[in-house]
Amino acid sequence: MNDRSTAPVTVIGLGLMGQALAGAFLKAGHPTTVWNRTAAKADKLVAEGARLAPTAGEALRASPLTIICVTDYEVVRELLSEGDGEGGLAGTTVINLTSGTSAQAREAAQWAGRREARYLDGAIMAVPPVIGTPEAVILHSGPRADFEAHEGTLGALGTLTYLGEDLGLASLYDAAGLVMMWSVLNAWLQGTAMVKTAGVDAATFAPFAQQLATEVAGWLPGYAGQVDKGSFPAEVSALETDVRAMAHLVEESEAVGVNAEWPRLIKAIADRAIAAGHGKEQYPVLIEEFSTSQEGD
Amino acid sequence: MNDRSTAPVTVIGLGLMGQALAGAFLKAGHPTTVWNRTAAKADKLVAEGARLAPTAGEALRASPLTIICVTDYEVVRELLSEGDGEGGLAGTTVINLTSGTSAQAREAAQWAGRREARYLDGAIMAVPPVIGTPEAVILHSGPRADFEAHEGTLGALGTLTYLGEDLGLASLYDAAGLVMMWSVLNAWLQGTAMVKTAGVDAATFAPFAQQLATEVAGWLPGYAGQVDKGSFPAEVSALETDVRAMAHLVEESEAVGVNAEWPRLIKAIADRAIAAGHGKEQYPVLIEEFSTSQEGD
Repeated sequence: MNDRSTAPVTVIGLGLMGQALAGAFLKAGHPTTVWNRTAAKADKLVAEGARLAPTAGEALRASPLTIICVTDYEVVRELLSEGDGEGGLAGTTVINLTSGTSAQAREAAQWAGRREARYLDGAIMAVPPVIGTPEAVILHSGPRADFEAHEGTLGALGTLTYLGEDLGLASLYDAAGLVMMWSVLNAWLQGTAMVKTAGVDAATFAPFAQQLATEVAGWLPGYAGQVDKGSFPAEVSALETDVRAMAHLVEESEAVGVNAEWPRLIKAIADRAIAAGHGKEQYPVLIEEFSTSQEGD
Repeated sequence: MNDRSTAPVTVIGLGLMGQALAGAFLKAGHPTTVWNRTAAKADKLVAEGARLAPTAGEALRASPLTIICVTDYEVVRELLSEGDGEGGLAGTTVINLTSGTSAQAREAAQWAGRREARYLDGAIMAVPPVIGTPEAVILHSGPRADFEAHEGTLGALGTLTYLGEDLGLASLYDAAGLVMMWSVLNAWLQGTAMVKTAGVDAATFAPFAQQLATEVAGWLPGYAGQVDKGSFPAEVSALETDVRAMAHLVEESEAVGVNAEWPRLIKAIADRAIAAGHGKEQYPVLIEEFSTSQEGD
């Protein structure tokens, strides 16, 4: 609803990511107010045309939209809690891009609400250097109307994804994305460690790993249908067959002397599903194992 | 070297996969001899034109190329060990597509050698229904000349990949491929379990997971360069930053009541690398953790 090129915006928190966010707003022509506990981090942005607010409260009131990107939700709490005595923020929308959990996001919305600010939670699925390009995917959750009111301004940051009204969604998707990232990397490292024992270098193995990951990723939408139906017929392979191959994987890892923890956890989770009577079903039946807190959780 | 359309071939082991292999050879016009401990499993293939050999030894001697695809290497040992008293196999090449470890593959080559057979090891990265189509990727390792001599015949099975002279390579790549497959699936299930707690169905989440996996897979060739150089500058992110996000992931999993084992192992491996002094380096430095057998291994 705001004119994208002129809507004022505030950025609080000027770590590498906050600086990149403020820089992208400036580049897109937005009057940009910034604040950081250590004011010197604003120097470069001020040289580029940003206005440095003297306090966080003034920064929050300087623009109809404030982006917060700080270390953790403790800092967000300090900024948004009623305790700072800086009065109401009616008419302000806060978008919190700080990394945290879904519970922290919902709690932050309550603090913001007590100061009469509107609140959206977000998560940045990108590194600072790509902020301001379409490659930077930024997830948002919270009231749709508030997202749509500022979509034009936010578009300066990258590719926007609106996930839904539940304020916890951005954090949940962020976590789910990270678990995919580290899982692909760990699987690649496990495989690389294994083939290295036969003298294969990482560069030779990487395209194979890339192709496999991409191919398996293509199965997910189809497998999702089984999860949503709660029905797991063994159309391609039964879990009890998979587990035999998992045993080979563990054995191979141990035999060549690499770390076998990752393969062993893969097998342990599947073993539990078989013990629960799911051996004749297909892999996605493991959703039950992944959905259930285990001993020690 | 053999004319692809007429070279005779033998298939030993007629489980679902063996039947698919023999069926593909028949379809491509190869005179095909088959053998299985339970002869009835050959009925359908015999109806399609296969010849059923009375013994495994006769099956092995019936063609210049024999494909073995049985339950495990114990069975392969029985077929190939000197103990069966069925004499030499000079002039025969055996390609063993049975699932097993690299050590088992190297051992099987020795048994085959004692009977004067040439030996290649292989691994099928496909399910039986796609055998005979380009989608069926089949890995081979062993003497290159032996692979090339039968490449034309083997082409009837799918897309061939020759990995190198080391007989263990097919098993190692197979295991490395499987760990990628299960890791992508587990990461997707972990993420699905998490977003389900906010009412998101699996079908809604799957395309996001697919996109992430595909994107991260694209980083692997670049990251492989760091592994091969043994140098891990934090160009994109430092491990100590990643570990803070891993802590959020564990916390989030626990808070929403899903299984946190997978996230905890991700963090535990990274924690060890940080304890070893690698916090300022980039993720692929974990190759050292994955290459090292852990307590309990």
